[in-house]
Parts: sequence; structure tokens; C-alpha cells
Amino acid sequence: MSRIFNFNAGPAALPLKVLEQVKAETLDFRGTGMSILEISHRSKFFEQVLDDAIDRTRRLLGLNKSYHVLFLQGGASLQFSMIPMNLAVAGKPVDYVDTGTWATRAIKEARNLGKDVRVVASSEDKEYTHIPENVPVDRDAAYLHITSNNTIRGTQWRDFPDSGGVPIISDMSSDIFSRRFDPKPFGMIYAGAQKNLGPAGVTLVIIREDLLERVPKELPTMLRYTTYSENKSLYNTPPCFAIYVADLVLEWIEETIGGLDAMQKTNDEKARIIYGYIDSQDFYRGTARPDSRSKMNVTFRLPDPELEKQFLAEAGAAGLGGLKGHRSVGGFRASIYNSVTVEAVKALVSFMKDFAAKRG
Amino acid sequence: MSRIFNFNAGPAALPLKVLEQVKAETLDFRGTGMSILEISHRSKFFEQVLDDAIDRTRRLLGLNKSYHVLFLQGGASLQFSMIPMNLAVAGKPVDYVDTGTWATRAIKEARNLGKDVRVVASSEDKEYTHIPENVPVDRDAAYLHITSNNTIRGTQWRDFPDSGGVPIISDMSSDIFSRRFDPKPFGMIYAGAQKNLGPAGVTLVIIREDLLERVPKELPTMLRYTTYSENKSLYNTPPCFAIYVADLVLEWIEETIGGLDAMQKTNDEKARIIYGYIDSQDFYRGTARPDSRSKMNVTFRLPDPELEKQFLAEAGAAGLGGLKGHRSVGGFRASIYNSVTVEAVKALVSFMKDFAAKRG
Repeated sequence: MSRIFNFNAGPAALPLKVLEQVKAETLDFRGTGMSILEISHRSKFFEQVLDDAIDRTRRLLGLNKSYHVLFLQGGASLQFSMIPMNLAVAGKPVDYVDTGTWATRAIKEARNLGKDVRVVASSEDKEYTHIPENVPVDRDAAYLHITSNNTIRGTQWRDFPDSGGVPIISDMSSDIFSRRFDPKPFGMIYAGAQKNLGPAGVTLVIIREDLLERVPKELPTMLRYTTYSENKSLYNTPPCFAIYVADLVLEWIEETIGGLDAMQKTNDEKARIIYGYIDSQDFYRGTARPDSRSKMNVTFRLPDPELEKQFLAEAGAAGLGGLKGHRSVGGFRASIYNSVTVEAVKALVSFMKDFAAKRG
Repeated sequence: MSRIFNFNAGPAALPLKVLEQVKAETLDFRGTGMSILEISHRSKFFEQVLDDAIDRTRRLLGLNKSYHVLFLQGGASLQFSMIPMNLAVAGKPVDYVDTGTWATRAIKEARNLGKDVRVVASSEDKEYTHIPENVPVDRDAAYLHITSNNTIRGTQWRDFPDSGGVPIISDMSSDIFSRRFDPKPFGMIYAGAQKNLGPAGVTLVIIREDLLERVPKELPTMLRYTTYSENKSLYNTPPCFAIYVADLVLEWIEETIGGLDAMQKTNDEKARIIYGYIDSQDFYRGTARPDSRSKMNVTFRLPDPELEKQFLAEAGAAGLGGLKGHRSVGGFRASIYNSVTVEAVKALVSFMKDFAAKRG
């Protein structure tokens, strides 16, 4: 068994410790004589997993009682529609910041539903290579939607905008549980699990009680947030395995890493190592504006396409995987989510140095 | 490691051979140096899994080129809304047969969307203990919706109704791949995977090309069937792991069991063993009408509640799990899906005999 250094953008690396536990429990989940894949979602065994995942999410993010922790399906992409369906308010605009692809898709779905969408800030004119500085706040908006980290362009909000009491809704698919932040301004936080939280197939939704009061009763059952909040995400069969792995990842953050502050410290160190190297030389060129750089997705280019082809091939041969940039922008992207180790980042930088020394 | 005999209704038993392969590949999926949980859904490795699952579905069910094989999220419960949203036709009624809980929920969601719903047949007056004999066909209906197997009441359609050309849409969550049937009358077949196909978290949707032409373009992207058919279920990140396990189960049906006819033969044998025993004595009483009995979910009662309590406790102690009936009807339910072995059914009948001999 030889494991590579995995820089995939999502689905992405998971902690080896978590995978080893998944493996050990595959045929007999904690003495039940069944796999977690074979256990009823209404059994006490699964309920313990679900409760543990909810409790750990609360503790790690410091959520007070007014927040519900829910597990849905359909990825962030389904949330792009569910948010305006559930949380828009008649007669009020819904405000969005456009920081590229995922934010753009969220805007498109809200417009498609006929909502009064206002794009209050955008970095489209600079090809989304930075996070907008000024976000004009309209206190009348039903919500302000942002995307905390753009996986494709490698940009990330450093500080969240002051929304003056308007509930912020954030897609945190690619940086949830990577750093400490104050949850209070957020009315809702959502995240497809497959980057920082677990496998593909489950979407974490954290929603504040007062926003649930907006949910129109006439929406289809599976598209109402209240269906999940009133049934502890068990109205129908949830994606049990994905929730189970997410719970193991949350346990790993709390108990192996030592909590969110320790996780953030490690993530800061990894970002410092790779951006420090990029800034120290001229062969590789970071594509995001330095003040907007993501600590999760490091995007960079080489001097020409031929060198980029060689780089990709040689990196793969050296056991460094998943470095190819998103098909819409090209170049390279090293995703260094929570589960990517300092050792992996050092191996990447070492490879980059060697490659540049030979070609630069 | 001691595995129990698992009669769960869903999530349910999986073939041991499949679980052993999942276990063996957990840390290194087929030489990639990554877990299947860590692999990009846009990689050739995952694409092979997806293509294989599609091809095996086509072969096993004998689907011609006009059918699309799609993988969605949200379970059958989300389909209850997506079907009328996508496939109702203005000015035409949508016809439903009500055979209990899941059919009833499908009807409720279609009504909630304001569609012209007609319940053309129902067994509600007999507490859903049988499948209606006569289904009046209206050639003007946009579709006829049925639920091929009712997991709660233990009833199953033996022959599908003659719809006179109206596309039949069937929820086959609990009996897909359990028997041979002619797919031609079906416009759409859908199934939450967690009973006969794999783990919870993926929904198989088989839809005919002509029904896709009905899909309204203004629906939210993730709620349009065309989003999945036009992007081979890869518009956004699919539930990769659940699709991977489903593919292993399909491989097991084709290559270990020997195909759908062999699978059906085994399922017939299991049903014969347990119903044969139930019909041979007076202690246990089957609750479904014999001509409507399900070969997937065998529902039965004991003479009184005290005996039922003892039965459940002793069965658990004897390594027979998941026998408790659905909370809405009580009693017992032995789910004997594809992955439940003849050996497991024989062990159950042997236990039933012993218990009755002591108490009867």
C-alpha cells in the first residue's frame, strides 16, 4: 500500500487515522455485527453518530442554542436554490457578493426563481483574483450571501463584511472548520462535505432559528429547511455513511489535532510554507492577489504551457496528485485542506524547487 | 468479528463479498494511492466506476438506448416532488395508485404542487394489505405512478398494470434488481439505493428520452432531470462512495449470482421458505393478502403483544436483527432483499419454529 500526497480540490484528502478506522469497522460497526452501511438510520447506533456529529459541530464552531445543525443532500448546488426559496422575504431584496464560479451560480439560481437579486460587490472585472474590499450594506436586505473561499481562483475572505445586522449566509464548502470565526453575524452557513469535512454526499447546513420562521409552508417537503430541523435530519433516510465519516473527521479535529485553534495554526503554517516559497522566486507565479489569497487552495502558474505539462507529469510520477487547476482557468492548484499534512506541503515545495532548479 | 443475520428494512444487508472489497480498497483504491473517498469525481478512476454502474444497470434490466441511467441525491422522497415538477403536462391529469405510506406521500407532494392528481385505485379501505386488482386506465393521463413494493405493509405488484401507452412511473426502491420485468411500459423508474442496491445516499433514476422533453427549463438547475442527463450525473459532485458501492453490488448480481434471472430464483426460494412456513401453522399470522405478498418484506404478527416482545428480544439474542415492524404498523417484518442469504432465511424460520414450539 503506497499512499500519494493528495492535493485534490474535492473530493479531497482525508486523515489517514479516519480512513483506518473506517476500514477497521467496515464489516462490524462497533459490535453491532453489521456494517455502518447496513444499519437502520432509526437505530440507536446511528443516532449516536448523528448526535455526536451535531455536538462536535456546535463545540468546534462555538454555536449557541439558536442554531440548528442539519445534514442534507444535493451539495452546495442544491442550496443555491433552497436558500432563496426558503429565506427570501417578499418586498425585500436579496444581496449577493460575486467572487466567482460558485457565487455566480448562487446568484443565477436566485435570479431564476424571480427574486429581487442585487449584486452588491463583485471582482468580476479583475477575473475574480481578489475579494472585494467594500460591500455596501443595505439594512433592508433579506440576507447577504457570500462564498467564504473560492476554490477555483484561490481567494478567501480574510475578515467577513460588517452587514449591520442583515443575516449573512455563507457557502463555506471549502474552508469550514479550517479557522476560528465569530458565527453571530451568520443566519446560515452551509458546506458540501467533500473538501474539509468528509466524503461527497452530505451537505452541512447550520441555520439560525429566526430564519426558519421565514420558510414557506407550501414548499415541497424535501426542500423546506423545517423538514430537517423538525425531524433531526431524519424525515427520510439520510446519507448515513457520509455523516459517519464526517463525524470521524470532526472527532479527529477535536481530539487528535486539538480543536479549531490548533487546526488553524497548522493551516497557517502550511500556507506560510507554500506562499513563502512562491514569493521568494520568479519561476512560479501566484494568481490570486496576495491580500485575498486562500489558505485552502493555492493557485499558481509556470512560465509557459510546455513547462506546465512537464510539471504535471513529473509531479504525478513523484507521488504528488491532484495539482491540475480547474478546467475553467488552467494552471495549478494545490488544495491544502485540513487533512493535508505539513509533510505533504513540504514535499510539494521541495518538488517545486527541484523542478525550477532544473528548468528555471 | 461476528456478523448477525440482518433483516433490516433499509439501510439493509449488503453482500459480504462487497463489504470485503470495500474494506480492502479503503486506503488505496485500485492502485491510485487514494481512498475512493478522496478521488476527484472528474478523474478517470471515478468515471470508470460510474460508467460501469450505468452499463451494468442497462444490461441487468435490459434497457434500450432510449433510457438514461442517472444518479441523484435526496432519496425517493425528493423524487415525489421532482416527478410532478418535471413530468406533469399542463391540461392533463397525473394518475396515482395508492398502496400505502410511500405512494401516499408521492400523492401528497404532487397535490401540494397544485397538479391535477387523480387517485385511480387504492387499497386504503383494507389498510393497504393488498395491491388493487383493477386500475382504470385514462389514456389522457400524463403518467401513471405506482409503488412496486410496499416495505411497510409487505405488499408487492405481481404484474404491472396495463396502462395503455401512458408512461408508468414506478418507485422501485425496495425491489429493483430483485426480479425480471419488461421495462417498455415504464417512462421512469426510481429507487433509493439503501434496500436492494447499496448504501443510503444515492437515488437511481432511469428515465426515457421522450419524458425528458417535458422538463420545464425554468426549474432550479438541481431539480431538473435534464441537468443530470446532459452531464452524465456530474453537473456537481455526485455521492461518489454510494455509487461505487452500488456498482460493486451490481457486479455481484451479474458475476457472482449470475444475473437477474438467477437473482429472482434465489429470491423466490427465500420467499417460498418463509411464507411456506407461515402458511403451515397457526402461531404466526402473515398480514398481507396472499396474492399481494411481497417477496422482499415479509410482515407477520404473533398471537399477543407480550409474545411479540419476547420474540423480538430472543431473536436479537440469537443473532437475528432488524425484525421489528415499521413503527406505524407494529408487529414484525423480515426484509429479505437480494443480499439476504437463503441461510439467513433458514436461520430465521428455524428460530420461529423453536419459539413457537416453546410458546404455541
